[in-house]
Amino acid sequence: MTAISLIGSEQTEFIGGVAGKLHEFLSGQQELMASVSPDVEPLIGSISNLVTGGKRLRALMCYWGWRGAGGPAGNPEIVTAGCALELFQAAALIHDDIIDRSDTRRGGPSVHKRFSQLHEVNGWALDSGRFGDAAAILTGDLCLSFSEESFTEIGARAAAGSPARRIFNVMRAEVMAGQYLDILEEVAGPVRDRAGSVARAQSIIRYKSAKYSTEHPLALGGALAGAPATLLEGYSQFSLPLGEAFQMRDDVLGVFGDPETTGKPAGDDLREGKRTVLVGFAINQAPRPEADYLDRMLGNPLLMEGEVAEIRRIIIECGALEATESLIGELSRKAFDALERLPLQDLPLTALRQLAESAVSRAA
Amino acid sequence: MTAISLIGSEQTEFIGGVAGKLHEFLSGQQELMASVSPDVEPLIGSISNLVTGGKRLRALMCYWGWRGAGGPAGNPEIVTAGCALELFQAAALIHDDIIDRSDTRRGGPSVHKRFSQLHEVNGWALDSGRFGDAAAILTGDLCLSFSEESFTEIGARAAAGSPARRIFNVMRAEVMAGQYLDILEEVAGPVRDRAGSVARAQSIIRYKSAKYSTEHPLALGGALAGAPATLLEGYSQFSLPLGEAFQMRDDVLGVFGDPETTGKPAGDDLREGKRTVLVGFAINQAPRPEADYLDRMLGNPLLMEGEVAEIRRIIIECGALEATESLIGELSRKAFDALERLPLQDLPLTALRQLAESAVSRAA
Repeated sequence: MTAISLIGSEQTEFIGGVAGKLHEFLSGQQELMASVSPDVEPLIGSISNLVTGGKRLRALMCYWGWRGAGGPAGNPEIVTAGCALELFQAAALIHDDIIDRSDTRRGGPSVHKRFSQLHEVNGWALDSGRFGDAAAILTGDLCLSFSEESFTEIGARAAAGSPARRIFNVMRAEVMAGQYLDILEEVAGPVRDRAGSVARAQSIIRYKSAKYSTEHPLALGGALAGAPATLLEGYSQFSLPLGEAFQMRDDVLGVFGDPETTGKPAGDDLREGKRTVLVGFAINQAPRPEADYLDRMLGNPLLMEGEVAEIRRIIIECGALEATESLIGELSRKAFDALERLPLQDLPLTALRQLAESAVSRAA
Repeated sequence: MTAISLIGSEQTEFIGGVAGKLHEFLSGQQELMASVSPDVEPLIGSISNLVTGGKRLRALMCYWGWRGAGGPAGNPEIVTAGCALELFQAAALIHDDIIDRSDTRRGGPSVHKRFSQLHEVNGWALDSGRFGDAAAILTGDLCLSFSEESFTEIGARAAAGSPARRIFNVMRAEVMAGQYLDILEEVAGPVRDRAGSVARAQSIIRYKSAKYSTEHPLALGGALAGAPATLLEGYSQFSLPLGEAFQMRDDVLGVFGDPETTGKPAGDDLREGKRTVLVGFAINQAPRPEADYLDRMLGNPLLMEGEVAEIRRIIIECGALEATESLIGELSRKAFDALERLPLQDLPLTALRQLAESAVSRAA
C-alpha cells in the first residue's frame, strides 16, 4: 500500500472506532435516561444526531499527534480520547448555536431549534423559543459532562496530574475564555479603538479556535503517547498557526462562502455580529463612512441580502479580503514549515500534511 | 466537648477547608484567564462570588457520608470532593437562573444579570440581555468544567471505574434529566392529563433535586470512604425521602415564603411557571374554574401581586397546601426512621439528624 492509502485505511479504522464508541457510550446513557423517563430521550437523540456528522478534525489531530509520538494504531485509549473530543465539540456547538442564534447546523436544525420545533408540533404552552433555548442549555451541559466522563475512561494516562489531563483542562478553560472574548467583541468592539480590532480578532481566534481545534487536540494525542516536551513544542509551532489559518478560512467562508456548501445561510456571521480578522481589516482600511456603515450593520439580525452584498463589496474594495487571504497564506506557510521540521515518521507526517491542507483550503 | 459542639467544630473545619480550596482553585484559574486577557476576569469573578455563599448542603451531606462510612476527619480528598460538588452546584445555578429568568440569587444579581449590568455600565452596543445570557452560558460551562477538574484531583478514589466516579457521573446526568422534565412540565403540563400532575411533579423533584441534593452527595462521601453496598442502600433510604421533603419545602417557600428571608421575590416560582407538587395538588383539588385560572396564570412573567395573592388563596382553600405539608411530614418521618436504622456512630448520626432537620423545617 502507498502512504496515502495506508493513512486512509488507518483513519477510516480510527473514525469508525470513534463512531462505534460514541454510539455505545450514548446507548448506555440513553438507558439511564429511559430509567428516568421516556420524556428525556430527545436529549440524547439530539446529541447522537450532532456527533454523527462533522469533519472530526479534532479527533484526527489527536490521533496523528498520538501516532507521531509513537502511539500504536488500533489502541482503544486514543479512540476514547477522540470520543471525548467529539463530545466536547458537540457540547460547544450546542451552546454556541444558542449564543449565535444559529438555527441551522450541518444542514439541519440546530439543537435549540429542534426543541422549539418539538414544542410547536406538540402544541405545548408558553413560548417555544424559550423552551428550545432552555432544553438546549441542558443538552449542552449533559454533553459536556459526557465528554468528561468519556475522557476519564481513558484511565491512568488521563488521571489527575497527567500531562494529558492538564491539556484537556486548559483546552476547556481557554475555549470558553475565547468564546467570551468573541461575544464581548461583538458588543464592545464598536466602542473600542478601531486600530486594535485586528489584534483583538486574532486573540479571539487563537483561544476560541486555534488552540482548541488544532493545538490542544494534537498535543493531547502526543501527551497520551508520552511525547517529550520538545515534540509537543514542535507540534505547537505547527498547529497554532494552522488553527489560526483554519479559523480565518472559516471566517472568509462565513461571509463569502456558498450556502449550499457551508450549510449556513449567507451573511449569518454578519447578522450575528462576528468581529473577525476580516471585519477588523475592513473597519480599519475602508473609508470612514463605509467603516461606520459596517459598525452599524454588524449584529443586525434582520440584515437584507442587498446589505450583505454591500458589506461584501466594502470588504473587497478596501482590500480587507486580500489582507486576510495574505495572512492566511503567511500563517499556512509558517505551519507547513514547522511541520516539515517535525521529527516524525513518514506516515504521521504525511497524514498531518493532508489534514493541514484540507483545513486551510476547504470550501466548507 | 459535647457531640453538638464536636460536630460544629468538625463542620466549621471542613467548610473552611472547602472555602480555602475553592479560593485556591479559582485563583489558579484566574491566573490562566489573565494570561488569555484581562477581559475574561469577570467569568471567574462571578463564579467566586457565587461559591462564597450558600448552605453547603451537598458538601456537608458528602462529608457526613464519608465520616459515617469511617472516613477520617481532616482528610484533603473529602475537601476536594466538597469543592467539586460546590462548583457543580454553582454551574447548575448559573444555567438554572438563565432558564428561569431569575435576576436575583442569594440576595444579589444572578450571573446573567451581572453581565447584562456590566454591558449597561460600559455602554456597549447591541442587546444587554442577550449578552448577559450568552456570558452566563459560558460561565456556567466553565464552572461545570472546573467541577470536573476538581473532582478528578481526588485521584485514585475517583478514578475511572470507581464507585465514586460512577455516582458523580450518574448525579450529573440525572440532575440534567430532572431539570429537563421540569421545563417540559412547564410547557406540556397544561395540555397533559391533570390527574397525573402530582406524580409528574414528584418525579421531577426526585431527579432534579432529591437525588442530586442529598442522595448522591451522601453516597459519594460514603463511596469515597469505601462504604459497603448495604450502607449505601441504607443511606439512600434516608436521603431520598429527605431530599424530596427538602424540595417540597422549597416549593412551599417559593409561593408562601417571606422574600426578606428567601432572597427571592414572592411569587417568582409562579411567574416561572414551576409545576410543583403543591401546584399539582391545587390543579387537581381546586374547583374547575379555579384550576383553569391556575393553568392560565402559571408562567406569566407579568403576574401582579393581586394575582399571586389569589393563587395563594386557591392553593390554601382547596387543601393543596395542607396536602403538601402532610406529604412533607410523611417523607420526613420516612427519612428520620431510616436514619435511626443506620449503623452509624453517634457523631455522624447526630450530624445527619441536624442536617435533615434544618433541611425540612427551614424558612429560607
